[in-house]
Amino acid sequence: MKILVLGGDGFCGWPTSLHLSQLGHEVFIIDDFSRRRIDVELEVDSLTPIQPLSVRLDAWQRVSGKRIGFAHLDICADYDRVLEVIGSFSPDAIVHFAEQKSAPYSMKSTWHKRYTVSRNTSATTNLLCALLDAGVDAHVIHLGTMGVYGYESAGLMLPEGYVDAILEDPKGRLSKRRILYPFDPGSVYHTTKTLDALLFYYFNKQDGIRVTDLHQGIVWGTSTKDTELSEDLINRFDYDGDFGTVLNRFLIQAAVGFPLTVHGSGGQRRAFINIRDTVRCIELALMSPPSSGSQVRVLNQMTEVHRIRDLARLISRLFRVEVNSVSNPRTEDEENALDASCDGLVQLGLKPTLLEEGLLRELEYIARKYHHRVDSSRIPSQSLWSHRFK
Amino acid sequence: MKILVLGGDGFCGWPTSLHLSQLGHEVFIIDDFSRRRIDVELEVDSLTPIQPLSVRLDAWQRVSGKRIGFAHLDICADYDRVLEVIGSFSPDAIVHFAEQKSAPYSMKSTWHKRYTVSRNTSATTNLLCALLDAGVDAHVIHLGTMGVYGYESAGLMLPEGYVDAILEDPKGRLSKRRILYPFDPGSVYHTTKTLDALLFYYFNKQDGIRVTDLHQGIVWGTSTKDTELSEDLINRFDYDGDFGTVLNRFLIQAAVGFPLTVHGSGGQRRAFINIRDTVRCIELALMSPPSSGSQVRVLNQMTEVHRIRDLARLISRLFRVEVNSVSNPRTEDEENALDASCDGLVQLGLKPTLLEEGLLRELEYIARKYHHRVDSSRIPSQSLWSHRFK
Repeated sequence: MKILVLGGDGFCGWPTSLHLSQLGHEVFIIDDFSRRRIDVELEVDSLTPIQPLSVRLDAWQRVSGKRIGFAHLDICADYDRVLEVIGSFSPDAIVHFAEQKSAPYSMKSTWHKRYTVSRNTSATTNLLCALLDAGVDAHVIHLGTMGVYGYESAGLMLPEGYVDAILEDPKGRLSKRRILYPFDPGSVYHTTKTLDALLFYYFNKQDGIRVTDLHQGIVWGTSTKDTELSEDLINRFDYDGDFGTVLNRFLIQAAVGFPLTVHGSGGQRRAFINIRDTVRCIELALMSPPSSGSQVRVLNQMTEVHRIRDLARLISRLFRVEVNSVSNPRTEDEENALDASCDGLVQLGLKPTLLEEGLLRELEYIARKYHHRVDSSRIPSQSLWSHRFK
Repeated sequence: MKILVLGGDGFCGWPTSLHLSQLGHEVFIIDDFSRRRIDVELEVDSLTPIQPLSVRLDAWQRVSGKRIGFAHLDICADYDRVLEVIGSFSPDAIVHFAEQKSAPYSMKSTWHKRYTVSRNTSATTNLLCALLDAGVDAHVIHLGTMGVYGYESAGLMLPEGYVDAILEDPKGRLSKRRILYPFDPGSVYHTTKTLDALLFYYFNKQDGIRVTDLHQGIVWGTSTKDTELSEDLINRFDYDGDFGTVLNRFLIQAAVGFPLTVHGSGGQRRAFINIRDTVRCIELALMSPPSSGSQVRVLNQMTEVHRIRDLARLISRLFRVEVNSVSNPRTEDEENALDASCDGLVQLGLKPTLLEEGLLRELEYIARKYHHRVDSSRIPSQSLWSHRFK
């Protein structure tokens, strides 16, 4: 299969590209290195010493004998050249990671809000339009987020995208429908994924573009079998307050003896997935594309739900480190129920990597090995979700 | 009241600015003349001889003694200068017309799709962010469209934004909620108004920005009491295939003896409103802003529902002109029921201008007077809603 990976230099995009290449697919990456430029802006760096993409690609060829193509293009700004790549490569599938993916980053300032909306909506719109222009009927696999649903489900299990609903009109007449579960995003970043969902809805309905929207939980872990094949293939590990996800931040805090910072009560329940399962989920979605004419397929890409304070306690116990409660910079409920369906990917064959199993490996492989690279001043989260007129 | 009108040089924006100024409000217009530039692109012109904005503003001062301020700014590109205007003018309300508003234009090519998404989402995002940056708690009145709901309501009356729903989760558990009526846009343009609705939802929830989203029907008519005060104040009248709305196109076709072009069976039911009611609705929304902390207010800004072929027959009978059925360039149901609630604005005091009443005036005032300016080659619609992969 020919697979174009947009954002293939990133945290999820890189191990996905390797995994798909390893499976024998012809992989081509488009990336504009915007994630690396944000590191420069924030004056942070991956904990792990990631190599420039050209070094990564050479290393991959050396260890696997397989070549991954690459074009340095900004899908938002270089529409015509992206169209050329799509036209000449003619992919069977496109994995779309090319979006600004941090909620705290999207909340740093109004510049960051505007950047995130503009970048993410134009990346998605340009991709969909390029498929129309090129006449390439590729399956689009997009990385969404569980956060489109919001975290207050009032006792309901979150479905995979769609929910059965009975609507009651102003005259009391009823109509039964299957609708997209009503969105309730908690940050500007999460809002952009709801905008994406509507763009997919429309272009699927109008033009028949086949889309799988994978609403991913919080990713933890770093390495996959492929990235472990060479030090030059190492994946990024973010631990800073903007891009570091909660479990990875706890791991590095544990490794350097920094107290685990729990925002508020830590009663927030969130959905998690290991990076090894991320790459496998994308493989599974690729292997069973939606049929022509079917609506957007939505799958929840997550394997476990945990309360933040339970994770902190687990790591605190395992690694004998304190837990500190700090004030919560986000606007969110500090206690929520979360029950979410994730049957779709399991039915396609996913066998989840459990937290207990992966946790120690992560600590050994990454946190202990590279903890001398930690800049502790970058650990606290600085972005505030402040209310302007409330 | 101090009122900023974004897009105040346009078809709805101009008569709204005059109306609000006439009522004694302090009005300031921001416009980048993008609508006039699109006329240049499409090689069409308003049927009515509209004057440059500076001439319009001078004429208004002459006939009314009132000044309307103006800054030539692109809200998408000139964020900092828009922020300056908002900060120094400190409006009580902002009427947001600054979007690409034609569905056929948005479907002309992928360039037009991308332009419409980019322009409309960035206009709205920039406006919301500028309010946060300026610390100005202005009431935002946005012109949405009835088209966000779609036209297949399966026997339900379309509500005003929100609908009571019972959701059933994958385990069969039920939850009653009041949700945004599920969107089903029929063009890229309509899709952008659904994106706007989610942006308003988020910034209202997070930051307390007060928003009224007016989901407008198809506007017909041209003149208002204010625009009739001087020939230099005349409003634009579009009759071309992209920007001309159906009833105005029928009027001009009748005036020049061009057969009325009905797309498909003409069984499409659509919601209509006269331009005089548009300006009055905005006044009414301004006079009763949503209170601090309340959710986005959604009102349907329409007064009548008609089938397209009934309108064609009415005009055909009145003006003795033929009706031609042409193939429908749009992807839409050619027969639909449409029942929509529009109580909100009536409760606020709207007294609708009925079709029969306004129709003859329009024909006399506009179509007969300026029909020598018609370029018949511009009447047919050229944009196709073609399916790419279906």
